[in-house]
Amino acid sequence: MSIIDLTCGSGGRNTHQLIVDVILKNLNYPELFNMGDAAYIGNFAFTTDSFVVTPEFFPNCDIGKLAVCGTSNDLTVAGARPEFMSLSLIIPEGYKKENLEKIIKSVRTSADEVNVQVVCGDTKVVDNMSLKSIIINTAGIGKIIKKLNDYNAIEVGDKIIITSDIARHGMAILLARGELQFNGSIESDCCHLYNLFKCLDYNCLNFARDATRGGIAAVLNEISEKCRKGFLLYEEDIVVKNEVKYLCEMLGFDPLTVANEGVSVIIVKRDKVEDVLKLVKKCNYGDNAFIAGEVIERQVVMLKTIYGGLRNVEMPSGLLLPRIC
Amino acid sequence: MSIIDLTCGSGGRNTHQLIVDVILKNLNYPELFNMGDAAYIGNFAFTTDSFVVTPEFFPNCDIGKLAVCGTSNDLTVAGARPEFMSLSLIIPEGYKKENLEKIIKSVRTSADEVNVQVVCGDTKVVDNMSLKSIIINTAGIGKIIKKLNDYNAIEVGDKIIITSDIARHGMAILLARGELQFNGSIESDCCHLYNLFKCLDYNCLNFARDATRGGIAAVLNEISEKCRKGFLLYEEDIVVKNEVKYLCEMLGFDPLTVANEGVSVIIVKRDKVEDVLKLVKKCNYGDNAFIAGEVIERQVVMLKTIYGGLRNVEMPSGLLLPRIC
Repeated sequence: MSIIDLTCGSGGRNTHQLIVDVILKNLNYPELFNMGDAAYIGNFAFTTDSFVVTPEFFPNCDIGKLAVCGTSNDLTVAGARPEFMSLSLIIPEGYKKENLEKIIKSVRTSADEVNVQVVCGDTKVVDNMSLKSIIINTAGIGKIIKKLNDYNAIEVGDKIIITSDIARHGMAILLARGELQFNGSIESDCCHLYNLFKCLDYNCLNFARDATRGGIAAVLNEISEKCRKGFLLYEEDIVVKNEVKYLCEMLGFDPLTVANEGVSVIIVKRDKVEDVLKLVKKCNYGDNAFIAGEVIERQVVMLKTIYGGLRNVEMPSGLLLPRIC
Repeated sequence: MSIIDLTCGSGGRNTHQLIVDVILKNLNYPELFNMGDAAYIGNFAFTTDSFVVTPEFFPNCDIGKLAVCGTSNDLTVAGARPEFMSLSLIIPEGYKKENLEKIIKSVRTSADEVNVQVVCGDTKVVDNMSLKSIIINTAGIGKIIKKLNDYNAIEVGDKIIITSDIARHGMAILLARGELQFNGSIESDCCHLYNLFKCLDYNCLNFARDATRGGIAAVLNEISEKCRKGFLLYEEDIVVKNEVKYLCEMLGFDPLTVANEGVSVIIVKRDKVEDVLKLVKKCNYGDNAFIAGEVIERQVVMLKTIYGGLRNVEMPSGLLLPRIC
């Protein structure tokens, strides 16, 4: 690969390779390799995310809410309480002031929902030959409650909870583009995971990660590689809303590879799983939570299908849904 | 203004209006209005900056070094020691891997120069119809040594030190674009101001700000508005390198409005100014430092010209040099 192509941005295998072979190799901080999306600095977690989604407005969300939720969720699954955020805007020349106002209001509303304060920012305007749609970067700082990114905390036999039905965000964006002949709309799952996590007992949580680009498949494969264990999922237990399932089938997408923006994978001890699930289901955004499977010894992600067969769930490769966040 | 145009990104009057009337108004945190580029969180300063410069490689610098220096400088002039940084890359499809490697190496080299550690990041790839050149966002965290953004600390009679000759960065970028018939090249002044500040006695520094987009003119007008005092500059004392002065004259730019990336304005008590200047001139990047003028009662920025006349130095407006950072 001498050219970076769109597959490098999909969150799958090529993204992973770009990050490891080009970015981390040349940054040359070996300790970054085993990190999640957030870094730990003393008692704080620190993270950043850029949002390049188009269209910038879509059902139940817009790029402003997405930027706040995305960064707050990275802090949350790192085991921190989101507290402070930066807001950096890169705006194409000719952008409507009215749309920027809507986005900024949405940033504030979303920040208030999780008690985050936007404390600093930056604004750039770029000529419209060079940039076609607005880009937002947020960086976030949060106080650590309990570090939830320790791969050593994952043990064979542990159970996997997924906090919501999957694949809604990616499909919402795809539909919102208006390129498909499909009646109705799908709402993004974008939400603040902290408003779910804050109701949980962190002592019962061993590991967490949000399943964004590349979906459940990407996140479980990445965790598997790093913890050197595997995952067995039960297809019959995986919750996908009917309209999402239908659209995925129609377009040939595996819902396990479709992006989410408000769905966390939580790994808990087998004897705690029912208690944790019960609590998750009572929390905000948790009513569709389910036990997705368990940790196995062999370093592979497998799905037990509804017909009883086993298939590998690979790290997604190639071009998935571009620009979903 | 119902459309955001390029003048909103120049760092002058329209940028200021966009930030105040659209962004801060809708974010609705009144306390942000009087801030510099960094926020204070307990003992820490927190800041962010996006870099959209083209070309991404230019004499003495590239977008990677610029991204690290820009954020480290925002922390420095806030009175903090830069410590941690995030690195978010937004890459157009088709970008050369080799160029990305050069940029990442440059990020690391520049981070090492100021003992900053890059601890987290994000990578997006955008189709090349939507984005033409690489964008980098950095956010930074630093420990506060002494807060240097207190407008109340500025008093009539205080002196202004500018830590280097001015206008080099903007002119370096303009030349590097290769659109001008001009032999030779100009080196950007991009550097880590902390490596200058760390040699100074912070007790003698009352206020600091770096003079980036919109140059000395923008930064002094902004400070003037917020401290409700004015500045009188002496043209004969302002240091501009000959080739920069020549190019500015040829193109009709006022060097006071041209961007810098390694130049700080420092405000000190009148009786300390000679001592501080002596020290600055001994520090890294400080050998061309000079006393530029003083704080006056009337809320205006004035220049005493070499011919003895007085002219207003306005907040720059309209399109300056686009995309210099």
